[in-house]
Amino acid sequence: MLITLTTDFGQRDSFVGIMKGVIAGINPQVQIVDLTHGIPPQDILAGALTLRHAVRYFPRGSIHVAVVDPGVGSARRPLLIKWDGNYFLGPDNGVLSLAVENIAPSRMVHLSNPAYQLQPTGATFHGRDIFAPAAAHLSLGVSPTAFGETLDQSVKLAIPQVARQDRRIEGEIVYIDGFGNLFTNVREHDLTGFPGDRLDIAVRSATIHGLSRHYASAREGELVAVLNSWEMVEIAAYKDNAQQRIGAKIGDKVEIVLAK
Amino acid sequence: MLITLTTDFGQRDSFVGIMKGVIAGINPQVQIVDLTHGIPPQDILAGALTLRHAVRYFPRGSIHVAVVDPGVGSARRPLLIKWDGNYFLGPDNGVLSLAVENIAPSRMVHLSNPAYQLQPTGATFHGRDIFAPAAAHLSLGVSPTAFGETLDQSVKLAIPQVARQDRRIEGEIVYIDGFGNLFTNVREHDLTGFPGDRLDIAVRSATIHGLSRHYASAREGELVAVLNSWEMVEIAAYKDNAQQRIGAKIGDKVEIVLAK
Amino acid sequence: MLITLTTDFGQRDSFVGIMKGVIAGINPQVQIVDLTHGIPPQDILAGALTLRHAVRYFPRGSIHVAVVDPGVGSARRPLLIKWDGNYFLGPDNGVLSLAVENIAPSRMVHLSNPAYQLQPTGATFHGRDIFAPAAAHLSLGVSPTAFGETLDQSVKLAIPQVARQDRRIEGEIVYIDGFGNLFTNVREHDLTGFPGDRLDIAVRSATIHGLSRHYASAREGELVAVLNSWEMVEIAAYKDNAQQRIGAKIGDKVEIVLAK
Repeated sequence: MLITLTTDFGQRDSFVGIMKGVIAGINPQVQIVDLTHGIPPQDILAGALTLRHAVRYFPRGSIHVAVVDPGVGSARRPLLIKWDGNYFLGPDNGVLSLAVENIAPSRMVHLSNPAYQLQPTGATFHGRDIFAPAAAHLSLGVSPTAFGETLDQSVKLAIPQVARQDRRIEGEIVYIDGFGNLFTNVREHDLTGFPGDRLDIAVRSATIHGLSRHYASAREGELVAVLNSWEMVEIAAYKDNAQQRIGAKIGDKVEIVLAK
Repeated sequence: MLITLTTDFGQRDSFVGIMKGVIAGINPQVQIVDLTHGIPPQDILAGALTLRHAVRYFPRGSIHVAVVDPGVGSARRPLLIKWDGNYFLGPDNGVLSLAVENIAPSRMVHLSNPAYQLQPTGATFHGRDIFAPAAAHLSLGVSPTAFGETLDQSVKLAIPQVARQDRRIEGEIVYIDGFGNLFTNVREHDLTGFPGDRLDIAVRSATIHGLSRHYASAREGELVAVLNSWEMVEIAAYKDNAQQRIGAKIGDKVEIVLAK
Repeated sequence: MLITLTTDFGQRDSFVGIMKGVIAGINPQVQIVDLTHGIPPQDILAGALTLRHAVRYFPRGSIHVAVVDPGVGSARRPLLIKWDGNYFLGPDNGVLSLAVENIAPSRMVHLSNPAYQLQPTGATFHGRDIFAPAAAHLSLGVSPTAFGETLDQSVKLAIPQVARQDRRIEGEIVYIDGFGNLFTNVREHDLTGFPGDRLDIAVRSATIHGLSRHYASAREGELVAVLNSWEMVEIAAYKDNAQQRIGAKIGDKVEIVLAK
């Protein structure tokens, strides 16, 4: 059994370590993998995109915990979803919603049973008090329905839509990684009929000619567009930081035009 | 068996990884949990507070290693303390002192036995040469007294005191987390007779009215005071960074006044 | 069995977590240790130095994966080297070259067998698609030669040379750690005939008198030179940051003069 953790807790504090202590106290055998704790503070969409693109690389049956949770302790509910053989735990604010689709009735549970929470449950750290103990008990074989009442509604996020016309695709930057690479929402299948070597890709004042196979297709410091590991069009700078080069930020428009 | 690691080594270098290699070479079975490596460089009090508030969330019998150690290699002694069923290893500079109380005689040992150290022992990295091997041997069942002579004195840190008067409590900021949340030294029991909804909480030029149950009680960007996961009064900004908003730093006074 | 990971992937993203998911899917039992993910982006020499000084602290038979790989997906080959009882996997750009010496024929393999890669293999993330699966299969006992054809040439990095004269050693700064400590290329054996207490050590406008045993030999904030945990001459500032104090950077000359 394997539990993954995705949070915006960062590396400075003991929050993640304490969650692991709680899990180890309940199930000392379970393996824990940090997916990342570097989600920008309170950036629910970044957490949701990260989880969406990671799940396929973990063994079926894994338990994925995502805590990006500015509303902790308020009316938003702590959720457990079973989907496609995997388990997802997190607040009902959309952070889980891009990793799952068409959830069958009775596969979504409100984590409300106090028997599987640390008591007294605080109002600022449900990662420790609710999600870590639930994940650990689940890894021991506790049935999902034991954790609380089933739900049939949950908050859903949407990835911004790509607008596609005859010779032109308009997307936007949805994620920026630690290298300063710019991830767009334009996916491989959006490019059907748009041959990579005939594209002009524009973001802010920069234009890149053609889609390359790898970063090293450009000269050092030059911009390059590739299909990245999330199967999205990405704008990078070879051995450099595209975010800083271009001054780009999340939400910036990206225009892909088919040259004549 | 579980070993936790708390250091100011950060994420840039291989120091933590090397400690884990040393441990794995001695006891390949032991589980290692990073409590945090983000203690600000040489900030012994931050390390001590972090350890103090984490121990209760780990299984009894855990081995807690804390290396915030500017005096490494000098006269300060490497320590092992057994307290309340758990083990604590670190330099004798106070970093362990807030996690333990009233240590019985013969429960504190000077880690001086070269048989449980890497040889030759350097003077700049006792995490690798002394603390990691000691923790690993301890996890294999070596008796604490085998590591060296017992001690009856060690360096103690003090958490700054709270001054409490009839209608007024004066505390200070003792820790700031990665979200910019300001942890004060005012604990839940200090507030007896001070109902949360009648308090004014002031730090620098900011005043917050009332103690809230959770962050989302405030509007986005507004300041809010809560009882946090360390059971301390904390000043936060909902979906924002209170440290940056207020310009606060460790040691800033916090004044809590009971409104009439 | 133990796999170590050394990358420049940082802490923000899910790249490292995904590599661990791939490994766990192939060999759920293998232990994974993060050596560091804080190598400066694309800094192959920093990765190579880090690996070189870490290997001796891990159990013999460990599998060391190093991914600092700006040329990912281009003509540079993914390598597996067996040397001195340990395994090394990474791109053929020199990142492995300082940890191994005089490799016997047939001990170096091109990781080209698609049976041990994720398919389809992308061109931007060989950590996930090639190195993680290869390390996991290797940990299950797959023979090195099953991964591809043997090679007899690979890219080698050189550590900058130390120039030694009668009363004078000239070296340079080759690594700077997260504390701001300056690691030089001058090693302990370079100092034969240069007694530590008679040396003047100069970098930029700063001069330090004598080599000390530990950091605390200096007063708070003062510069101090020590032999560090890599057995190199290091310039530090006690409870302070030498890099910021001196304004030093990688490549700065360091001059060590024997006083009369």
